[in-house]
Amino acid sequence: VLSEFEFITKVTSKYGLDRVGDDCAILPKNAETDLLITSDLLVENLDFRLEWTESRRLGHKSLAVSLSDIAAMGGRPTSALLSLGVPEAVWDSGLLEGFYEGWHALAASFAVELVGGDVSRSQNGMFIDSIVLGEVPRGRAILRSGAKPGDGVFVAGALGGAAGGLTLLENGFKIESEMSENETKLLEKQLKPMPQLHVANLLQEQQLATAMIDVSDGLSSDLAHICRASNVGARIIADRLPFETALSALFSREDCLEMALNGGEDFALVFTGDEEKILAAYLPEVTQVGEITANTEIIELIMDGVPRRIPPQGYRHF
Amino acid sequence: VLSEFEFITKVTSKYGLDRVGDDCAILPKNAETDLLITSDLLVENLDFRLEWTESRRLGHKSLAVSLSDIAAMGGRPTSALLSLGVPEAVWDSGLLEGFYEGWHALAASFAVELVGGDVSRSQNGMFIDSIVLGEVPRGRAILRSGAKPGDGVFVAGALGGAAGGLTLLENGFKIESEMSENETKLLEKQLKPMPQLHVANLLQEQQLATAMIDVSDGLSSDLAHICRASNVGARIIADRLPFETALSALFSREDCLEMALNGGEDFALVFTGDEEKILAAYLPEVTQVGEITANTEIIELIMDGVPRRIPPQGYRHF
Repeated sequence: VLSEFEFITKVTSKYGLDRVGDDCAILPKNAETDLLITSDLLVENLDFRLEWTESRRLGHKSLAVSLSDIAAMGGRPTSALLSLGVPEAVWDSGLLEGFYEGWHALAASFAVELVGGDVSRSQNGMFIDSIVLGEVPRGRAILRSGAKPGDGVFVAGALGGAAGGLTLLENGFKIESEMSENETKLLEKQLKPMPQLHVANLLQEQQLATAMIDVSDGLSSDLAHICRASNVGARIIADRLPFETALSALFSREDCLEMALNGGEDFALVFTGDEEKILAAYLPEVTQVGEITANTEIIELIMDGVPRRIPPQGYRHF
Repeated sequence: VLSEFEFITKVTSKYGLDRVGDDCAILPKNAETDLLITSDLLVENLDFRLEWTESRRLGHKSLAVSLSDIAAMGGRPTSALLSLGVPEAVWDSGLLEGFYEGWHALAASFAVELVGGDVSRSQNGMFIDSIVLGEVPRGRAILRSGAKPGDGVFVAGALGGAAGGLTLLENGFKIESEMSENETKLLEKQLKPMPQLHVANLLQEQQLATAMIDVSDGLSSDLAHICRASNVGARIIADRLPFETALSALFSREDCLEMALNGGEDFALVFTGDEEKILAAYLPEVTQVGEITANTEIIELIMDGVPRRIPPQGYRHF
């Protein structure tokens, strides 16, 4: 049985789908602009639990995951479609009202317009397909395939917070529980992530990134996608990783490292490019975490001065 | 509890979504062209049954429903995304291989390129979100809202065949059963419908249609959408309805009428426009079935010379 990744590789190679495999598809729009489009499925009890979140946050997150894909290409989101499969009990509960409120609040903050979608009954479990369109200056979408040996590896945003929030939820925390500020912050990182569109736009305007991806499956997995697409390797310094502050306050260094590397859903951005230029640009919340090497598809983590090879271990669907 | 239609009306009016409500959303592309985009959900055991179809036909139909939406706007499809929720048993069965073959065979016949999508596990039941992009000359998308009293009402394609096929499946017919040519034909109408892109393109080129929709929920429902959007009524002559030939051979006149009006999934096109011009254009498989009236939102059916008012009774999800 093929994994999801192997299956997609097989389908794309069989049908020669050269636009599949980055965070978004790129389609020609006009002389100045390319169109971006991305689709993300969220399935109840796999990608979210209704007892762990509430309607507004779920609406927010459903859009945020796709906005993050637009950000990862250096794009600007413009419009969206939303397709929902809704079990009768969810329909009757009135959840969709809050869901659309949360979706729309985030959409409005980035001037994203809802232009279509579909609503269907579902027999078992809710599911959401979030489709977002965006734009990028023609020929300037930031791909996974442009990293070069010697480029710095950078993270925009903090890592591990979403995984920390998930750990709290798995341990019985509820959004309505009494909890510390740090715990609240981690839950929000998991349930209401913010896409890094601002940094993405700065990188685009200044043409600073040679490759980029968003951290949806964990740094180890997502950096491995860049390495595979660019035919390079990477060396990461553990002490440089920008752990979410609230995470460091609540978990051990080992747990933080594990969550940052393999936790996923942070919707931070990982990008590569010229170290000096990027450091000189003083981008907000951007940290250099390592560099690109010529060791094709090998990712090394330097911890306490000792290098070890890390396999991509992020979330896999099958 | 709101019906799906009421819910969409509420969401669209609350958020001022003036692009929602036709078969596709229309987005500006460039000086010559508008972009169309549509999304259709197909949910196992609501929209299809794996024991009634097989993988290639299911792949074909998943794309056909969305191509039909592009046709309904007078557009030309260009590219597509496909998001699949797949239960483990379906994954293990190898169904997806055939599904993609069927999808791709139809896509290739209209030069539609697969550019993205998502694949996720599903805990219960398979679901498919089919997203298709298309193009139309700028400002010339055929909307539901352009019908005028005095326009003729036309159908491109035949009616009732898909409902006839569904009836056979409900009565225990299997695709591998021994059956007559007519029975085979009806099953194929249900399981492997063909979108009316050819006629749609002729209507577009010659600018003959004032309003158009595809018959996804049954003629009564879909014509009611045109009447509502155009603020008109319609008068339909029962004897003019183009029943699928195989349907007339196997079912009574009453059953044929019921299936044509309320059966759905024929993916024929209903359109309105100047009678003389349209009849003079000799369009293939196009039949005049009635005319548009000024009786806002009232649809009359003339049967044996006697008019009766028909309510929209097509398929509703909730």
